[in-house]
Amino acid sequence: MEDSCTLIIFGGTGDLVKRKLVPALHQLKYEGLMDEGFNLVSIGRRNKTQAEYKQDLFDGMVNYTKLLIHEESWEFVKNRTTYFQMDFNKPEDYTLLRNFLNSKVDSGEYSPNFMFYLAVGPENFGKIVNLMDQNGIVKDGNNWNRLIIEKPFGVDLDSAKTLNSEIRKVFKEDQIFRIDHYLGKEMIQNITMLRFQNAIFEPLWSNKFIDNVQIVVSELDGVGSRAGYYDSTGALRDMVQNHLLQTLAITAMDPPISNDPDHIRDVKVKLMSELVLYSDETVADNVLFGQYESYKNELNIPHDSKTETFVAMKLYIDNEKWRGVPFYLMTGKKLEEKTAQVTIEFKFPKDIEETCSTNEIFSLNQNSAANVLEIKIQPREGISLRLNTKKPAVINETVVAEMEYCQSCQNNFNTPDAYEKLLLDVMKGDSTRFTRWDELALSWYFIDSINKKLVPLYHYGDNSCGPTQACILLKKDDRKWWHLNKMKRGETHENL
Amino acid sequence: MEDSCTLIIFGGTGDLVKRKLVPALHQLKYEGLMDEGFNLVSIGRRNKTQAEYKQDLFDGMVNYTKLLIHEESWEFVKNRTTYFQMDFNKPEDYTLLRNFLNSKVDSGEYSPNFMFYLAVGPENFGKIVNLMDQNGIVKDGNNWNRLIIEKPFGVDLDSAKTLNSEIRKVFKEDQIFRIDHYLGKEMIQNITMLRFQNAIFEPLWSNKFIDNVQIVVSELDGVGSRAGYYDSTGALRDMVQNHLLQTLAITAMDPPISNDPDHIRDVKVKLMSELVLYSDETVADNVLFGQYESYKNELNIPHDSKTETFVAMKLYIDNEKWRGVPFYLMTGKKLEEKTAQVTIEFKFPKDIEETCSTNEIFSLNQNSAANVLEIKIQPREGISLRLNTKKPAVINETVVAEMEYCQSCQNNFNTPDAYEKLLLDVMKGDSTRFTRWDELALSWYFIDSINKKLVPLYHYGDNSCGPTQACILLKKDDRKWWHLNKMKRGETHENL
Repeated sequence: MEDSCTLIIFGGTGDLVKRKLVPALHQLKYEGLMDEGFNLVSIGRRNKTQAEYKQDLFDGMVNYTKLLIHEESWEFVKNRTTYFQMDFNKPEDYTLLRNFLNSKVDSGEYSPNFMFYLAVGPENFGKIVNLMDQNGIVKDGNNWNRLIIEKPFGVDLDSAKTLNSEIRKVFKEDQIFRIDHYLGKEMIQNITMLRFQNAIFEPLWSNKFIDNVQIVVSELDGVGSRAGYYDSTGALRDMVQNHLLQTLAITAMDPPISNDPDHIRDVKVKLMSELVLYSDETVADNVLFGQYESYKNELNIPHDSKTETFVAMKLYIDNEKWRGVPFYLMTGKKLEEKTAQVTIEFKFPKDIEETCSTNEIFSLNQNSAANVLEIKIQPREGISLRLNTKKPAVINETVVAEMEYCQSCQNNFNTPDAYEKLLLDVMKGDSTRFTRWDELALSWYFIDSINKKLVPLYHYGDNSCGPTQACILLKKDDRKWWHLNKMKRGETHENL
Repeated sequence: MEDSCTLIIFGGTGDLVKRKLVPALHQLKYEGLMDEGFNLVSIGRRNKTQAEYKQDLFDGMVNYTKLLIHEESWEFVKNRTTYFQMDFNKPEDYTLLRNFLNSKVDSGEYSPNFMFYLAVGPENFGKIVNLMDQNGIVKDGNNWNRLIIEKPFGVDLDSAKTLNSEIRKVFKEDQIFRIDHYLGKEMIQNITMLRFQNAIFEPLWSNKFIDNVQIVVSELDGVGSRAGYYDSTGALRDMVQNHLLQTLAITAMDPPISNDPDHIRDVKVKLMSELVLYSDETVADNVLFGQYESYKNELNIPHDSKTETFVAMKLYIDNEKWRGVPFYLMTGKKLEEKTAQVTIEFKFPKDIEETCSTNEIFSLNQNSAANVLEIKIQPREGISLRLNTKKPAVINETVVAEMEYCQSCQNNFNTPDAYEKLLLDVMKGDSTRFTRWDELALSWYFIDSINKKLVPLYHYGDNSCGPTQACILLKKDDRKWWHLNKMKRGETHENL
């Protein structure tokens, strides 16, 4: 069981609280994972009664989630929730907050262990942290203080450094939990399990046996209500810098020497530091942007916007394990399919020049295809493995067979939302699935090596598979995107 | 397309012809794999008209197989079949056979390429071959002659040598096709495909990564109508010496340098020569026999029979690849389940002391189980792979997942009978799936190292999983038989 704690959310009337955080608390309670000493203080500027606010939360769960609401669990969350009205821009309001918290802690009603969740724009992080500190809300002692923040952590390395130094004046690195909700997804966590809890994958996990790796996150939706933020950010910063690079790090990192959070993050940092930077000479050949056709007609998007809603890129990792293996990343909005997956394409037997135990020549059947391991992150969750097997008949040919394990297809299984896991992790003080500063800094360092002015921008049809150039990027290397492999659905992409 | 040829079967009124050979010819024709110049001469002692004999064949297909009889294919086989009445013990009858064949070949009706199939007891092999030779039936020239024989090839190395030398007086080694019908089974052939047409298995295929291998052939049926033969033979000679050791050889052989039949048989021979022999000191600890309870009550079985109907054994292979890995073999009659499978149990990550690319310590989750690859030969045909994946929930545990590919579950798929493949192989002259003399000799050499007098014989219940001692054999090593793993069926074998 976790320590008892008090969760203090700035941005309490925002979408995140309704859609994700309160539903996650409900589920954690339902699963018996909440300490009885838990309380929630939700801060907002709007004038609301406690009853109105709680009704908002309830309506949010009903409207935005598919949860079966469990009365006892909801009562638990509701009874422990207090809406606290204040303007986080006003220094004097922090005195009220301090007094409220002090009185609740002194009376024994609240735990003195504080989790501060800044569910507000990052431009407010420094100010809120500073004002909390000046007003004695963040107190050291026998209790603990933890800070939770979400992306964007800056727009480049410099701005990220500035943001970080503001926060670090008050919180130590091990008190800061930078959420990347991809790290809370079931199948992203499963990558670590698959790699290190099975004997059969890690020996194959290197340039000796792997031809290329593909990491894809494609979305059906367009920019939606986030137009203002999105147009000033773009897909590279919104998706690649965090979700895709984190997924890459977990897929490609060396085995950690233990499960200790810092050992895991140490190997991720090592990996991030080994990404081959782009130069102005190489970037245009290896990175391309796209923008969906109707993007400029979206509400609040400038008609001359050059913001990318699609990124495809090829990168290398310069270490013994991965030298020579291309990693292909792709992400985009308004595509034909919602999917997130990591695809490991193995070499052909004949291309494995030197294996560990043998140095034999395999004679490859002409029908044999590459072995492919797919780790499906969403919406379907599971793994599949393509093998060559004997064609079922009298003749001596092979045929491709696919073995599959579908986790999300299991009976009675609802995938826990990433926020459940991540909130629980913060309560436990387990920072494994949060981004440490040095990881973050290195990911910006890599992204900053992309001179965006030199990257070509192509338009692509709404609900298409993205710009044709993304397919050409792989075709030049005699490869193809596996997530576009429509063979099994009876479609073909021969023209790509 | 194969050469045209004439198939001459001794034992033409026996079960094999009706149940297997003629149905296989029907299917090969149906699949378009038969040369138009094919003819069949079926030899029997009984007095039958051509029409009666062909009706027997037709009735056999209807009664003993599940084939959909295709009129055109059956007409093809029927029209090319001649029943030839003779007593193969009478030298004078061979003159009649020679004259018949000569006239048919001379008139251009029959191909001069002869396949002789001895579907008779092995005690007759030498005599028939000798009389054919003396009477000028086996002629060298621009045509070819091939001899097909089936087990038992002797009862020990000495008798096998005698049998072989009788045959070799007439036929050269490359003219002799010793059928082991296991080598014609789809999934046995698939073992080679899986190992050498995929990049991901062979690197793991050694004592570095594999903990143990299990080869199991269990039968529901009792001794049936083969009592006389069976009681003088026993499971060790009837099953282990041929089917199980051949399966073992294909599973464990080194990669061949090419697909050439002799290269494949070279590595099988090497493997057979590396089997660790039993001594009188070791045999009782590693080999055990069983006899099902009702065996002595079967028709034509002596009441004091000590013949084994069940064998379980543990053996080692003394080479770099397999040193230290136990191979557990089990076969028996009258067991609770009909199954044939090869099970590869991999080591735990923590037990892999030194991998090729890393030398890291994995911290193993307490719930993690061994990875297990099952190659299912019959009745279900396919492969499955047990993996540890993340337990689908917020907690950090693993759960065992099974990925499966079921070949025999595919729509519209009828597994071809082993005899189809094997007859076609002989027509082509492809000896890959036939046992070469040196393989056979070495398998007897290994079997002869078992001093049967020292092997304990246990009784086991009809329709049980065999004697408890077979489970203890593995339990002593802290292992278990995977084919008895009833977890997935909701049963347990806790008491074993």
